[in-house]
Amino acid sequence: MNRPYNFSAGPAAIPEEVLEQAAGEMLDWHGSGMSVMEMSHRGKEFIAICEQAESDLRELLAIPPEFKVLFMQGGGIAENAIVPLNLSHAGTVDVVVTGSWSQKSRKEAAKYAAEVHTAASGEESHFTTLPDPKTWQLSRGASYVHICSNETIHGVEFHELPDLKALGSDAPLVVDFSSHVASRPVDWSRVGLAFGGAQKNLGPAGVTLVVVREDLIGHALPICPSAFDYKNVPTPTRATTRRPPGASTWPG
Amino acid sequence: MNRPYNFSAGPAAIPEEVLEQAAGEMLDWHGSGMSVMEMSHRGKEFIAICEQAESDLRELLAIPPEFKVLFMQGGGIAENAIVPLNLSHAGTVDVVVTGSWSQKSRKEAAKYAAEVHTAASGEESHFTTLPDPKTWQLSRGASYVHICSNETIHGVEFHELPDLKALGSDAPLVVDFSSHVASRPVDWSRVGLAFGGAQKNLGPAGVTLVVVREDLIGHALPICPSAFDYKNVPTPTRATTRRPPGASTWPG
Repeated sequence: MNRPYNFSAGPAAIPEEVLEQAAGEMLDWHGSGMSVMEMSHRGKEFIAICEQAESDLRELLAIPPEFKVLFMQGGGIAENAIVPLNLSHAGTVDVVVTGSWSQKSRKEAAKYAAEVHTAASGEESHFTTLPDPKTWQLSRGASYVHICSNETIHGVEFHELPDLKALGSDAPLVVDFSSHVASRPVDWSRVGLAFGGAQKNLGPAGVTLVVVREDLIGHALPICPSAFDYKNVPTPTRATTRRPPGASTWPG
Repeated sequence: MNRPYNFSAGPAAIPEEVLEQAAGEMLDWHGSGMSVMEMSHRGKEFIAICEQAESDLRELLAIPPEFKVLFMQGGGIAENAIVPLNLSHAGTVDVVVTGSWSQKSRKEAAKYAAEVHTAASGEESHFTTLPDPKTWQLSRGASYVHICSNETIHGVEFHELPDLKALGSDAPLVVDFSSHVASRPVDWSRVGLAFGGAQKNLGPAGVTLVVVREDLIGHALPICPSAFDYKNVPTPTRATTRRPPGASTWPG
C-alpha cells in the first residue's frame, strides 16, 4: 500500500492510526456488536461517542463553558444562511470582505438582513492584503460582524482576531474558521460564533462545527428551518431528554 | 463477536459484507492510497463513487430519467422546510395529516406557504386509520400535496400512492418515504418529489435522498438558503464542471 502525501485543500488526510481504529471497530464497536453507523442516535453508546467528541474538542480548542458546541450539517455554505437566520434579527449585518468566501457570505446574508454593510474590503488590492481593522467602518447596532479568518482561494489570513470592542462595536464577531480551525489557539473573548466544515482540519466531511455563545441562541427568524435553529440542534445532553409527544419509542 | 438482531426504528442494521468491505478499504480505496473520507470531492475517484451510488439507486428504485437524484444533508426534518422553500411558490400547500411526521411537515410548511390546507386528517381516529383519498379536500391550484407514506410513530402506511390526477388535482405529490423507501416499488408517475433520510433503509445516517422531477427544480423562494436550493445541489455530472470564478483549484 502506498499512502500519498496529501496536500488537498479540500478533505484533509486522516492519521493512519485513526483509520486503523475505525476499520477495526467497523463490525463491533467496543463489544456492542454493532457498527457506529448502526447505533441508535439516542442509545448510550452513541451518546457517549458524542460526549467524548465534544469534550475532546472543548479541550483542544479551549472552548469556554458559556459556548455551546453544535454538530450540524450543510457545511460552511449552509452556515452562510443559517448564521443570519439565527443572528441577524433581520437588522444590519457588517461583513469584512477579504476574498471569495466572505463575498459568498455577504451575498447570502442579504437574503435575511435588512442591510448588509461592507465594513471593509480587500477588493481593490484583488484580495492580496487584509484591511487594517483600525480602518473598518463598523455600523452602530449591527447584529453581528462577519469575517472569514482564512480565505483559501485568495490566500489571506487573520493572524489575530479583531477586538471589536476596542474598535467601538458591541456586535458579536462571527468567524468562518473552516480552513484553519485547530491549527492555532482561538481568543474566544473576541468571538460570538465560529463555524467550520469538519472536512479540512477536524475529520471527514459531513459534519459542520458551530461554536456559539449561549446568549446568541434562541433569536432565530420565524422563517428559519426548525432543523437549523440553533436552539433545536441536539447536543449529547439534550438528545437523551427530548422525545416528541406521543412517541412510544424514539422518533426516527 | 456477537452481532445482535437489530430491529431499531432509527439507524438500520447494515449487511456484514458491506461493513467488511468498508473496513477493508479504509486505508486504501481501490489502490488510490486514500480512504474515501480523504478524497477530493471533485476527484475522479469520488465522482465515480457518486455516479455508482446514483446509478445503483436509479436501478433499484426504477427512477425515470426525468427525475434528478440529489444527495443532501439535514434529514427529513430539514426537508420539511426545504421542500416548501423550493416548491411552494409561497402559495397554497395541501397536507394529508396521518401522524406525527406529517403533523411536523404541516407546521413547518406554514413558515413558507401563504396557506397550508389540511386536505385530510386521521386525527379523529387518533391516527389509527388512513383517510380514503376519495374523501380528501384538495385545493385548486395548490403548489403541491404532501403525504408521509409511512408514519413510524403512529404506524399507518400507504400501500399505494394516491393518484392525484384521478382525484382532480394537478398538483405534484410530495412523499416523505424515509421509513419504507426501497422496501417496495414506487409508482413514479404519481410522484413529483420524494425524500427520505438514508439511515433507515438505505445506509448510514448523514445523507438525505431527494428524488425530484426536473421541472420542479429552479423555482425556489428568494429566502431559500443557496445550499438547499435544489438547482445548486451538486450531482456527479455537475460537480466536475462547476468551479467558482477566480478559483485556481477546486474551492474547498
